[in-house]
Amino acid sequence: MSVNPQSTPSAVTVLGLGPMGRALAGAFLAAGVRTTVWNRTPGREGDLTERGAVTAASAAEAVAASPLTVICMVNYDATDAVLRQDAVETALKGRTLVNLSADTPGRARDTGAWAGEHGIHYLDGAIMTPAGTIGTPQAVFLFSGPSETYGEHRAVLDGLGGTHTHLGEEVSRAAAFDIALLDIFWTSMAGFVHALALADAEGITPRELAPFAKGIAQILPPLFDEFAGDVEDGTYSGAINPLTSGVSTMAHVVHAAEDHAIDSGVMRAVEGLARRTVALGHGADGFSRIAEVLRRR
Amino acid sequence: MSVNPQSTPSAVTVLGLGPMGRALAGAFLAAGVRTTVWNRTPGREGDLTERGAVTAASAAEAVAASPLTVICMVNYDATDAVLRQDAVETALKGRTLVNLSADTPGRARDTGAWAGEHGIHYLDGAIMTPAGTIGTPQAVFLFSGPSETYGEHRAVLDGLGGTHTHLGEEVSRAAAFDIALLDIFWTSMAGFVHALALADAEGITPRELAPFAKGIAQILPPLFDEFAGDVEDGTYSGAINPLTSGVSTMAHVVHAAEDHAIDSGVMRAVEGLARRTVALGHGADGFSRIAEVLRRR
Repeated sequence: MSVNPQSTPSAVTVLGLGPMGRALAGAFLAAGVRTTVWNRTPGREGDLTERGAVTAASAAEAVAASPLTVICMVNYDATDAVLRQDAVETALKGRTLVNLSADTPGRARDTGAWAGEHGIHYLDGAIMTPAGTIGTPQAVFLFSGPSETYGEHRAVLDGLGGTHTHLGEEVSRAAAFDIALLDIFWTSMAGFVHALALADAEGITPRELAPFAKGIAQILPPLFDEFAGDVEDGTYSGAINPLTSGVSTMAHVVHAAEDHAIDSGVMRAVEGLARRTVALGHGADGFSRIAEVLRRR
Repeated sequence: MSVNPQSTPSAVTVLGLGPMGRALAGAFLAAGVRTTVWNRTPGREGDLTERGAVTAASAAEAVAASPLTVICMVNYDATDAVLRQDAVETALKGRTLVNLSADTPGRARDTGAWAGEHGIHYLDGAIMTPAGTIGTPQAVFLFSGPSETYGEHRAVLDGLGGTHTHLGEEVSRAAAFDIALLDIFWTSMAGFVHALALADAEGITPRELAPFAKGIAQILPPLFDEFAGDVEDGTYSGAINPLTSGVSTMAHVVHAAEDHAIDSGVMRAVEGLARRTVALGHGADGFSRIAEVLRRR
């Protein structure tokens, strides 16, 4: 009797049942994958058991139930506490672990090294969208680590829905992209909430400002392309907007906000970087020169 | 003989011939408006004279040549130095002045008061797009001040092209919107150049990061609407992304960058605001709560 590989029953274990872990397990179940779940604190399965999930009594037992384990916890301190125990390391040997928790590229490299020492196939990953998107076309996943391992488990991982990008063999790349994108995200949002506070002090309501703020967001994508080219090619053109004129408008933001007693530490830090870059002799360059200055040693 | 008001020859004076002032004068000329120009340092007319502009010998003479004067200089220190002289104040009396220079809402209010004292009709404005957009559909102008004055000169100002928004009677509103939008713009760009530096330290090239960075920019507009609603309604929902989980990822950015000796003062300031907001008891709220904390006294 021949076996059709496409009909081989697939199985996955999910460690960690916070909102994201539950969403991952739910998406695997919806995709018809046999799913074993475990959480340090019991009773967090929600409706997963009714939907067919098997609850394991320990992390080691959970890992032993599937060729592929996906772990998603608050950070790598939490995943280390679960994974770096003899019983779990033994159970993982020869199997594949995918860590979708968020942490730094350094922690991803460290976990990759630990996995190598214990004969564990390891992929690191990052989830770029909220739990509610998991299992939908809106979900965005980044993965890094051995292409062979990714290829082997790709079909099961696709059950999570959305867009999946394998960023390369180096295990830290998913975390590095994740961190760089969070950097852009949180900094931009900090600019927006500060602008809301400043606008309010000037009698402008949040909903009055929002359409114009969206206009600013819409000019960012082409500027991101332009700045990326500037930095990669070392051009840093300031022909349209030289740093010397930029710092003057940054100071206006700081003064206008501080005149209303609004903390402006974020914009003060931005202005400080820009002024330091001007003082290094780059006043005629564009704002993109700051990326190069930040990298100097 | 009857005069068709639409064919009355229109005239404007442009004070300040930096790149933006030259672009403004050029757009007026292209729109068929009789244009008089003046710059503190002579010889900055470029091809404006060939194109029909009249060069005045002094600011007072320039102002006297037209019912409408548009001034655009580096800031209000520069415009004050030109405008607050007896001869210019006398020439402006009963005429209209539009200040398109960038500065704080406080400086706009101060200039509005000065104009009132000297019988000058005054509009304040802000140009939201680079000099290259002036005279094209891409230009964006904001105006504030008396509706009657705006209505009287709107047809001539429309010669500058693009989108014009009159934000209301209060003279400082254009500057307040401008400052709030610059706040969002520079802070977002600071996040992007920092992300480029961090990515580079992790072996990710600028052009590799750019498409993902653009993905982040694309999720901002709906979040701006959501946050604006949160702040206006006082809801601050953290159901999808509570501050307590946000601060953990902000710390990851700081640590990952500082591990590469990259200055992270901007993100440290963002994280500090978020931690302070958590410490005030708002850890279960969303990031939008920070706008309210920034406004507390």
